[in-house]
Amino acid sequence: MSDAGVTTRRIVRITAAGAAPMDDAVAVERALEIRIDGQPLTVTLRTPGHDRELALGFLHTEGVLRAAADVRGVTTRDGACADEPDAIDVALVPGTPVDWTRLERRFAATSACGLCGRAHLESLRAGLRPVDTAFRVDAAALLAATARLRDVQPAFDATGGIHAAVWLDATLEPRVVREDVGRHNAVDKVVGALLDAGALPATAGVLWVSGRAGAEIVLKAASAGMPVVAAVGAPTSLAVELAEAAHTTLAGFVRDGRLNVYTGGDRLGA
Amino acid sequence: MSDAGVTTRRIVRITAAGAAPMDDAVAVERALEIRIDGQPLTVTLRTPGHDRELALGFLHTEGVLRAAADVRGVTTRDGACADEPDAIDVALVPGTPVDWTRLERRFAATSACGLCGRAHLESLRAGLRPVDTAFRVDAAALLAATARLRDVQPAFDATGGIHAAVWLDATLEPRVVREDVGRHNAVDKVVGALLDAGALPATAGVLWVSGRAGAEIVLKAASAGMPVVAAVGAPTSLAVELAEAAHTTLAGFVRDGRLNVYTGGDRLGA
Repeated sequence: MSDAGVTTRRIVRITAAGAAPMDDAVAVERALEIRIDGQPLTVTLRTPGHDRELALGFLHTEGVLRAAADVRGVTTRDGACADEPDAIDVALVPGTPVDWTRLERRFAATSACGLCGRAHLESLRAGLRPVDTAFRVDAAALLAATARLRDVQPAFDATGGIHAAVWLDATLEPRVVREDVGRHNAVDKVVGALLDAGALPATAGVLWVSGRAGAEIVLKAASAGMPVVAAVGAPTSLAVELAEAAHTTLAGFVRDGRLNVYTGGDRLGA
Repeated sequence: MSDAGVTTRRIVRITAAGAAPMDDAVAVERALEIRIDGQPLTVTLRTPGHDRELALGFLHTEGVLRAAADVRGVTTRDGACADEPDAIDVALVPGTPVDWTRLERRFAATSACGLCGRAHLESLRAGLRPVDTAFRVDAAALLAATARLRDVQPAFDATGGIHAAVWLDATLEPRVVREDVGRHNAVDKVVGALLDAGALPATAGVLWVSGRAGAEIVLKAASAGMPVVAAVGAPTSLAVELAEAAHTTLAGFVRDGRLNVYTGGDRLGA
């Protein structure tokens, strides 16, 4: 996480003892437009830093991009003012197959306008490939490893207001740590880093997220082949259903020396 | 919050003492497609319940719908299976002016496809009208009132994994309490309830949110004329900038007897 992720604001803190002006660290949120070969795909509100990984991870988890070798290059452009989004353009190797029909199918679901139009759920689940791996992890070791992760979140320590996603390898060492004001962006950055490292599908290890596990977190993990999702917070009902369909192990409330296993308990010996 | 917001799953809880099967309450997340006069606008992942308010609040905060009187009727249809989104169609009174150009402007920003295409930031800020009200609130009274709000979040108590938004009136009584797996949805439900009650713009009171305050929370509050946003969590840099532009009072970390004022401290006497 670069320093670009945190800025300082002058605030007034009010307590029972009165009001006092002071400086406060605030997580940076700025718009980023993601393009393929010059064609705008989406605008996301994200924390600047690791934008290449964010874009590649987003494109991979959305089923657009399969491998880093398909990327000819990436160009970025900062917005000229506070209102103009930053932009990142992903140029593909000519001839790279892109599943435009999948994009179009999603587009069709929100054809009236872009608004905050999320992808159509049906097509999301249609892209689910069950995770197939012999990977197993000891629950006690997972609890011990994740208890140490607070130490690797500098922007959270500074601001108290940013999400983190961490890829723990098969030995439960934290290999990729990314922070973002958006939960999904933090996961996309992790996936993008693994894609760049040629480490996908990531079938031996654990994706840890600092917050809750909603449907989209599980979908992103499954698209990267990840066998285990461990969330500090609660899962949603749809996340549990999708984890079941993807054969993903989903653990929630992973904190304070305990965890709840919602699906795939065999990988945890439960 | 109806019981539809919570479901029960069989889980395994792992602690230092071992593994034990048990039932766990999980927040329900399901897709909802929002339509105007049969035309699909967006698909959102939400907690079922108060869908009318969610749709009306969404349309209002996006600048599409101005008043409840413009709504001829609302029809809902449950999805036929787990994959098909539920749907809600908002029929407008014939002749109701709809700012389609605004929608189209946003659409243009994500014209390649719908994906998770967020609205273009430029057009979002373009729609900001500064909040103009003489409303003031005592910071100590706000701290006392918000400290009692945990008691009014039944689904959070059950699941530990759902967001809440509350509208506190000028006397700091909680008037509208809504919960949802999506933070933005909870705010849309509050705005929709106020719209249905003819209480917009809501220029005397406080919007309280149980989590962080990102840019979109501030935009939604401003669109409803709300003068004060009080968040249990941290704000982002863009939220602070937009609150400044909208003359919104933005308080963060409102908990444990203290709060940080990021903008508009005069309304809090800071």
